Amino acid sequence: MKALLLRDIRLPDGTGCDVLVEDGRFAAFGRNLTAPSGAANEDGAGGLLLPGLIEGHTHLDKSLWDMPWYRNECGPLLGDRIANERRQRGLLGLDPARQARAVADRFLALGTTRIRSFADVDTEIGLKHVHALLELREAQAGVQEIQVVAFPQSGLLVRPGTLELLTAAMADGADIVGGLDPSGIDRDPKGHLDAVFALSGKTGKPLDIHLHEPGELGAFALELTVERTLALGMQKRVVISHAFCLGDVAPARQSGLLALLAEAGIALATTAPPSRNVPPVAACRAAGVTIFGGNDGIRDTWTPYGAPDMLQRAMLIGLKNDFRRDDQIDVALDCVTGAAALGCGFSGHGLAVGMLAEAVLVDAQSVAEAVVAQPSRRLVISGGRVVARDNALV
Amino acid sequence: MKALLLRDIRLPDGTGCDVLVEDGRFAAFGRNLTAPSGAANEDGAGGLLLPGLIEGHTHLDKSLWDMPWYRNECGPLLGDRIANERRQRGLLGLDPARQARAVADRFLALGTTRIRSFADVDTEIGLKHVHALLELREAQAGVQEIQVVAFPQSGLLVRPGTLELLTAAMADGADIVGGLDPSGIDRDPKGHLDAVFALSGKTGKPLDIHLHEPGELGAFALELTVERTLALGMQKRVVISHAFCLGDVAPARQSGLLALLAEAGIALATTAPPSRNVPPVAACRAAGVTIFGGNDGIRDTWTPYGAPDMLQRAMLIGLKNDFRRDDQIDVALDCVTGAAALGCGFSGHGLAVGMLAEAVLVDAQSVAEAVVAQPSRRLVISGGRVVARDNALV
Repeated sequence: MKALLLRDIRLPDGTGCDVLVEDGRFAAFGRNLTAPSGAANEDGAGGLLLPGLIEGHTHLDKSLWDMPWYRNECGPLLGDRIANERRQRGLLGLDPARQARAVADRFLALGTTRIRSFADVDTEIGLKHVHALLELREAQAGVQEIQVVAFPQSGLLVRPGTLELLTAAMADGADIVGGLDPSGIDRDPKGHLDAVFALSGKTGKPLDIHLHEPGELGAFALELTVERTLALGMQKRVVISHAFCLGDVAPARQSGLLALLAEAGIALATTAPPSRNVPPVAACRAAGVTIFGGNDGIRDTWTPYGAPDMLQRAMLIGLKNDFRRDDQIDVALDCVTGAAALGCGFSGHGLAVGMLAEAVLVDAQSVAEAVVAQPSRRLVISGGRVVARDNALV
Repeated sequence: MKALLLRDIRLPDGTGCDVLVEDGRFAAFGRNLTAPSGAANEDGAGGLLLPGLIEGHTHLDKSLWDMPWYRNECGPLLGDRIANERRQRGLLGLDPARQARAVADRFLALGTTRIRSFADVDTEIGLKHVHALLELREAQAGVQEIQVVAFPQSGLLVRPGTLELLTAAMADGADIVGGLDPSGIDRDPKGHLDAVFALSGKTGKPLDIHLHEPGELGAFALELTVERTLALGMQKRVVISHAFCLGDVAPARQSGLLALLAEAGIALATTAPPSRNVPPVAACRAAGVTIFGGNDGIRDTWTPYGAPDMLQRAMLIGLKNDFRRDDQIDVALDCVTGAAALGCGFSGHGLAVGMLAEAVLVDAQSVAEAVVAQPSRRLVISGGRVVARDNALV
């Protein structure tokens, strides 16, 4: 693989330097580096170099990105949305392989080099979405690492046959077992959690549980999840997504729950929705709980919002958490870079010697400006080479 | 003034038509319109035509837009931010005339044809910011209507001399009397509101009161404002900005307060901050209360966020209110178009025959897509002519 010398960039801490990439990894950061013979040369022109961005929670398989506009007339309840989605995906002729590829490519063009995506599994579509994402995972390998979560969106125990499908999805190569709303959807918190933890134990794969349940109902599910994580020794292998309940409960209760999560090594994924209470990023970090960011659905039948741009998500995380100081906005960026790598278990990530050479070059004076203004991505490097220029794949 | 025929556009309701502009106003909407001789011709190429966008609440005078990045290290309290601003504007050499012009021009390039802007008045800067905005108001006349609110950001009664300055600002031509946090900042709710209502009565100018006060403290100030509005017959001439208290109180209390606001004809301005409770747009409208949108500060010492793009603000209003259906997102757009014209008292606004010819052409399949994706502004029409193309002033 050809070496790459990227000259004259600024690192997030403001240091100006050159960057040498060899064998797909960062080989050196320093002033006036000399390129090995035959190396590609890029002039950074003083731009700001950010680590490759990470999408920690999305649904690539059901985005309507690049499709004709879908007019949303869906009811307001979670059940309305789940039923509407099952109905619409047939009516719209949604092709999960095509859609996932379109969104993943757009993510890459905007600097996102790692993605955790859920793939719906239910008794209507079976493993179609899982297989589409597994194929995408192979197709993107080398420039974009994709984790595939087999996800029982329409319920696990309430739809007999789904657990068997989820088991088959894991056998077919899914990376992570998904769960959701053990009380709100499956109506059986103990049964749901026992089932997904058992599948996780049997397959040796981590868990990602979507917990939309509010207040004390959500807190109860969170406690049950902590108990099982500790009992089964699954520290660092469980993510709870959303966890809105942490934003609903009183501060003392919140502190207690965060201490439990820290003890169990459970990480949180947040989409920082402006319309709901959310786990506060600063309090989570202070308690020792890893928290990272994601879009959730991007322009799908659930929501028209979202964009394959993790700098926009970082902005929304910053706004939601009232992060105004530059050092706080650095944390918002960390939610879609370092903390996301830690929480999702993506290895070899970061702007350091020996890490995989993934980075995004933007024209911004500071990390905070990159987050609030989401400037054009002048250059995206992944797999040790330039994969996109000016927001377009090369 | 030369006529303008804009061919082949779609109106927000989906109707395809041509638009004829004569003497600075919309003269006709219809299919296959014939241009008067000498008219300018523009091909809309099937784009979506939106009404001119309206910024209902911003601070043009203190934005750091286009200036070197300001590293925010300010404390978290309202008092910290007010004091920090007074300190920084000197250190940074902020020129309110230059800054206001830069932001207003960027607003226009992105389709915003009307702006309500606050201009700080205090005993350090005197009327400097007011005069800068009054000059801008004249300079932009004909393409962008600017309302100037004389605004006692650092307090009114707590800083002796400020009321006299505010009075002088009105005499010099400011359009609206500003007030803020009668308890939280001025420590005298009766005194503050009596003072601003008296100035409003004396000058015959409307009021815009920034009410950040939470819960029942804010609700009390809101009640006091309603009482004075009714007693003085100032219906339709008072705006309360923010009114976070309406999002804090219980539903029954909220309904009661909204009924009072409707009776008093008081409109609300919302910036829809993700980090705070806010007046819910749907409930306000159902109660007969006009509510419209604004950025508040744009990249200033208070906050690095915000953009001179009212489609982005409409997106944030939509996200905050969990507006997912297309008909709901139409309401988010109304918050930065029709409802903002009504709430601010901007006349002659809208896509209808006889209205001032102000419009924005975008490549979007629907209003909802324009709000969630904030596409490039292909054409901005104001004052009856094309003033911007592809996000740049012509």
